Amino acid sequence: MAKAWHLVSRPQGLPTMDNFALRDLPDQPLEANQLRVRNRWLSVDPYMRGRMNDAKSYAASFQLGEPMTGGAIGEVVESRMDGFAPGDLILHMGGWRDGGVIGLDLMPNKLPRQLLDAGMPPQTFLHNMGLTGGTAWIGLLRVAAAKPGETVFVSAAAGAVGSAVVQIAKAREMTVIGSAGGAEKCAWVADIGADAAVDYKAGPVLPQLAAALEGLGKPGIDVYFDNVGGEHLDAAFAVANDFARFAICGMIDVYNDGHPQEMKYLIRTIPARIRMEGFIYTDQFFDCMEEFYADMGALIASGAVTIRETVHDGIDAAPEAFLGLFAGENIGKMLVRI
Amino acid sequence: MAKAWHLVSRPQGLPTMDNFALRDLPDQPLEANQLRVRNRWLSVDPYMRGRMNDAKSYAASFQLGEPMTGGAIGEVVESRMDGFAPGDLILHMGGWRDGGVIGLDLMPNKLPRQLLDAGMPPQTFLHNMGLTGGTAWIGLLRVAAAKPGETVFVSAAAGAVGSAVVQIAKAREMTVIGSAGGAEKCAWVADIGADAAVDYKAGPVLPQLAAALEGLGKPGIDVYFDNVGGEHLDAAFAVANDFARFAICGMIDVYNDGHPQEMKYLIRTIPARIRMEGFIYTDQFFDCMEEFYADMGALIASGAVTIRETVHDGIDAAPEAFLGLFAGENIGKMLVRI
Repeated sequence: MAKAWHLVSRPQGLPTMDNFALRDLPDQPLEANQLRVRNRWLSVDPYMRGRMNDAKSYAASFQLGEPMTGGAIGEVVESRMDGFAPGDLILHMGGWRDGGVIGLDLMPNKLPRQLLDAGMPPQTFLHNMGLTGGTAWIGLLRVAAAKPGETVFVSAAAGAVGSAVVQIAKAREMTVIGSAGGAEKCAWVADIGADAAVDYKAGPVLPQLAAALEGLGKPGIDVYFDNVGGEHLDAAFAVANDFARFAICGMIDVYNDGHPQEMKYLIRTIPARIRMEGFIYTDQFFDCMEEFYADMGALIASGAVTIRETVHDGIDAAPEAFLGLFAGENIGKMLVRI
Repeated sequence: MAKAWHLVSRPQGLPTMDNFALRDLPDQPLEANQLRVRNRWLSVDPYMRGRMNDAKSYAASFQLGEPMTGGAIGEVVESRMDGFAPGDLILHMGGWRDGGVIGLDLMPNKLPRQLLDAGMPPQTFLHNMGLTGGTAWIGLLRVAAAKPGETVFVSAAAGAVGSAVVQIAKAREMTVIGSAGGAEKCAWVADIGADAAVDYKAGPVLPQLAAALEGLGKPGIDVYFDNVGGEHLDAAFAVANDFARFAICGMIDVYNDGHPQEMKYLIRTIPARIRMEGFIYTDQFFDCMEEFYADMGALIASGAVTIRETVHDGIDAAPEAFLGLFAGENIGKMLVRI
């Protein structure tokens, strides 16, 4: 019998284990246009925190007492859906569970056999070839319209999205400064090619960012890719070059925290003519999916874009993997392997 | 002998009369490519506050001990510049003085004889046909790309820029909510066509803005034209519709104040995919000057765009007119008549 994590209470601030319960899913016969699936990999992502609230947002709220959902890689064990056969590996939105019945509402898509046969691990479609890599690519190249020769600052640069931003930017001949928390993460950010790393746990962001720019002989940043908000965002306003573009992907610093963000340098929006824009992967992904797969696939194949995975094992571990995102526990992509 | 206001000390916070001194300009013979001018109208504008600081910005700093500059309308009394003759009315940057010698660096331009003959008052080129009207037109229609049918919120709507935004937006069939300080200004904002007015002196902005939207049957705002920053900007983030655009023209709330802006709703940038963009009139004006003059001229001629002028008389009054901008003293455009 398949089991799924259900939302049993809504968090105030940081989520806790009490918000989740692992429960059996009812057995049910397979109907037309359904697949029975055994999941292999589950994704946990910061945006899911918003879905735990009972508030209108771009992603529908999880309902109390119902199974949670999210990106997953599964293997088809039974199919009543055209084009899918037992043994197929699929990407779908029926995560937070070890398996069960997947209908069209959970958007099953077969993984491309050609890439799997060439050795691409299936869980790549949960990160660099999927949500986090697509978010990085769209935000950097489309929203911020970053160009070769420009200077890019990216926060949470050791995370799944941030590490992809660093590597795509370096592959496009940009200068990159990444911020991360702690020496180990900063070392990895440098390993994947960043020209400088800022350790936000070692001291305030702005003086470190300014020192990094000076060390690189750059007057300021042309692009800021924000995953964090708060102090990082304010530091980006402080050092923005004229006509800088900020792609706002996340503000993990404030997801669990109702405090206002204190913006001392927001006023530089006017003299520096800064453009700041929030974006969501799904708004733009389907318009550029083919270009993204071709470009990102080539970057991965050439070794220009790599990843680290922080893996928790077993369906029991999903909530602790998710909570680890907010404790800065992961390097690269946080995953649950089943 | 011509007299000019000189900057004699730099303000900390709000400027005071002590920062200014009215001094004689040296008599000088007219050289080639110079005009001798008697000024009739001087402009005072909030952006000049930034020029009083000794900091790099988009407009050059005023130098200590030197005459200040700014927009002015003058009459040519002597010319050694091709195309200019005594009696011509010109727009130029040699303001803050009652007259003197104007070279090419102060950008003299003849006012169009056809419009003056049709009855357009010359000082219109210091507001609706000039800096403030151009700023409104560019910010609303170019930067924010506001469209007929959309809902626009504009702060400082009783000011020179804001009142032009209200009227251009109404002429383009948008729904408009304007904020202003006090009942008299709010009444004028309604007079010039705003569908609702928010009195920021009567209470917090956000609940009034939300009530105005509800009264108009609108779910939120599509465009925010910011002249103020701070609480107004945060309220705009709170009620922004998906894909809202914010044109950031000014933040007069924080020009004299080093405190951080407390942004509780900035995080809505992501779920609502808000685009916020700072802009400066001179970056875009020369690319669209002909279209602006034709469009704005027609709006003024038809009576769709009007103005109120708050006028101080005499060169002696220039600093008090300028300081009045920060006390919210003006309705419409603040001018000095000589």
